[in-house]
Amino acid sequence: MDVCAICGSLRKRSFNRMALRAARELAPQGMTIAECAIRQFPLYDEDVRQLGFPGPVQDLRERIRAADAILFVTPEYNYSMPGVLKNAIDWASRPPDQPFNGKPAAIMGASPSMFGSARAQYHLRQSCVYLNMFPVNQPEVFIAGADRKFDENGNLTDEATRKLIARLLQELARWTARLKTSE
Amino acid sequence: MDVCAICGSLRKRSFNRMALRAARELAPQGMTIAECAIRQFPLYDEDVRQLGFPGPVQDLRERIRAADAILFVTPEYNYSMPGVLKNAIDWASRPPDQPFNGKPAAIMGASPSMFGSARAQYHLRQSCVYLNMFPVNQPEVFIAGADRKFDENGNLTDEATRKLIARLLQELARWTARLKTSE
Amino acid sequence: MDVCAICGSLRKRSFNRMALRAARELAPQGMTIAECAIRQFPLYDEDVRQLGFPGPVQDLRERIRAADAILFVTPEYNYSMPGVLKNAIDWASRPPDQPFNGKPAAIMGASPSMFGSARAQYHLRQSCVYLNMFPVNQPEVFIAGADRKFDENGNLTDEATRKLIARLLQELARWTARLKTSE
Amino acid sequence: MDVCAICGSLRKRSFNRMALRAARELAPQGMTIAECAIRQFPLYDEDVRQLGFPGPVQDLRERIRAADAILFVTPEYNYSMPGVLKNAIDWASRPPDQPFNGKPAAIMGASPSMFGSARAQYHLRQSCVYLNMFPVNQPEVFIAGADRKFDENGNLTDEATRKLIARLLQELARWTARLKTSE
Repeated sequence: MDVCAICGSLRKRSFNRMALRAARELAPQGMTIAECAIRQFPLYDEDVRQLGFPGPVQDLRERIRAADAILFVTPEYNYSMPGVLKNAIDWASRPPDQPFNGKPAAIMGASPSMFGSARAQYHLRQSCVYLNMFPVNQPEVFIAGADRKFDENGNLTDEATRKLIARLLQELARWTARLKTSE
Repeated sequence: MDVCAICGSLRKRSFNRMALRAARELAPQGMTIAECAIRQFPLYDEDVRQLGFPGPVQDLRERIRAADAILFVTPEYNYSMPGVLKNAIDWASRPPDQPFNGKPAAIMGASPSMFGSARAQYHLRQSCVYLNMFPVNQPEVFIAGADRKFDENGNLTDEATRKLIARLLQELARWTARLKTSE
Repeated sequence: MDVCAICGSLRKRSFNRMALRAARELAPQGMTIAECAIRQFPLYDEDVRQLGFPGPVQDLRERIRAADAILFVTPEYNYSMPGVLKNAIDWASRPPDQPFNGKPAAIMGASPSMFGSARAQYHLRQSCVYLNMFPVNQPEVFIAGADRKFDENGNLTDEATRKLIARLLQELARWTARLKTSE
Repeated sequence: MDVCAICGSLRKRSFNRMALRAARELAPQGMTIAECAIRQFPLYDEDVRQLGFPGPVQDLRERIRAADAILFVTPEYNYSMPGVLKNAIDWASRPPDQPFNGKPAAIMGASPSMFGSARAQYHLRQSCVYLNMFPVNQPEVFIAGADRKFDENGNLTDEATRKLIARLLQELARWTARLKTSE
């Protein structure tokens, strides 16, 4: 089971990238999680798209198409998704095909605040309706107080959070298998 | 009354930019609306910000600080704000100061679909809570079926929409004056 | 395939009840849609629940438990779900068990306005995350301008809307079968 | 300054009612907060409204009309507003007049969970756009872990929360005065 992971933060010591690294370690047997880069994306411009998808966008689109499921790992900025993540989704979702269509997904996120990116996640879930994606309902992974949950090497040290991420990924595996079986 | 307008679409023949042009024509006496460019913004990266705001971001921040009110003109992508607009907000809102703080705002948007960017506008309104902005409640301007409401030169030809935009801007003027009076 | 339908409006000549009636006619072969009454529900009060679920609540809980899928038919009041519908959900979802858990669902709605209950539907979708329901993504059925789409006998006369409802129900049938197959 | 408070929970030992009691103690000088009862409201039914507003609804409508500001105190059920609260709003907001129109408001809420009713509050804020109310942006009062913050007599013992509520009410007083000055 190949999972394409998209991380909504670009900074080096991002809690969300650290959480994504933890997810890779905690993935159930048979699941491989690979981060798909969005750093080189230009700002979405339909006039540019008409000339052809830029290389990094084309790459992401192929990765998504090939993936069995998508993992979004997102911070929350200004009570919504980061522009960086949304811009990647806006590019990747454009016609002629729409590679997110029908994919199962899992959503997790971290923030130093008490909500652990929840407001961003609910907005992302609304986008999933349009994209015709099927996000796992439960567990929801809100890594609140993220500044206290990773060590200086970026390891997720909070045991409860590790268990929660592991559960989310098990659920994603189960959900992806269910949707595949019944296609 | 100086209004800083931010348009969430970058393409040349954007319905939203056309709507913004109409807004400039329809502004009540004493109100000047200037579009603030966001096209040159890099993707938000906190590591980059630590080195100093990029020039175009710095410009927008100063324009916002100097403005009496903000006008958002936004399309809807994937049932939410465009990444392009959100990225601009994410950059412009960062510390040390937060230039949107306390500003009155108006929101409008266009899309070819039946909702005229409504889903994007409600997400933006949630961001306004964090930003401590005060968006006008009514009228809401949802330019649905936008592909039929502008002529080939980009003029807004739909009379009902012209009146609605004029009303929104009058309300923005009134609301901005109210908040200024009572500071 | 037994579908339990819940209608968020109580008035006799409700467009939403008319839409539900149309849905019953348009259901694909093998699907039976029955409206589950919520009119006699008291306002939710946890102290009352401690004494036992009131009869009409108990009935709905059993109907939901027995159903293969749920159909929500909802107007929009004040840019959200009607209190009437939400109150029914609040009652029906309470422990010890939670009968909505794992159920597939479809959402449709009507209103005289241009949005056809969309804002209510997105709020309801957020509730579905908590309830661990699986609503169909597409098509979304927003019956806008509902006052022009039914005749005086309450028949849905708008052909495009009839087709849309039929498609939603076909999709619900397919989705319910998929989830059942893969349990 | 007269504030009409509406509490979204009906049970006797509701954390939200306790929080409302704390708010009454913490109100700044010159502000009086009175709870407006919604317990006797029937479920909203437009056919009933056509016969005249039921007594308790009529009472609330008059209280709202007379009030300088509204205080909503709301739990979160199923990731949204309680049906009980929404039903009260649906009734109170109906024509011929709409008594919430133009009123300043403050929103607070409590829940045993980690979010302290945040998801309900954002849905309520969306309703405020329709109602043309002006809710205070900051501070937001999310009383998370509410089961540990009140003593057995219903007193709010958590000092940080007491300060937060006091700040919200000061802000409501300031905001209400601002809007009144500038009418």
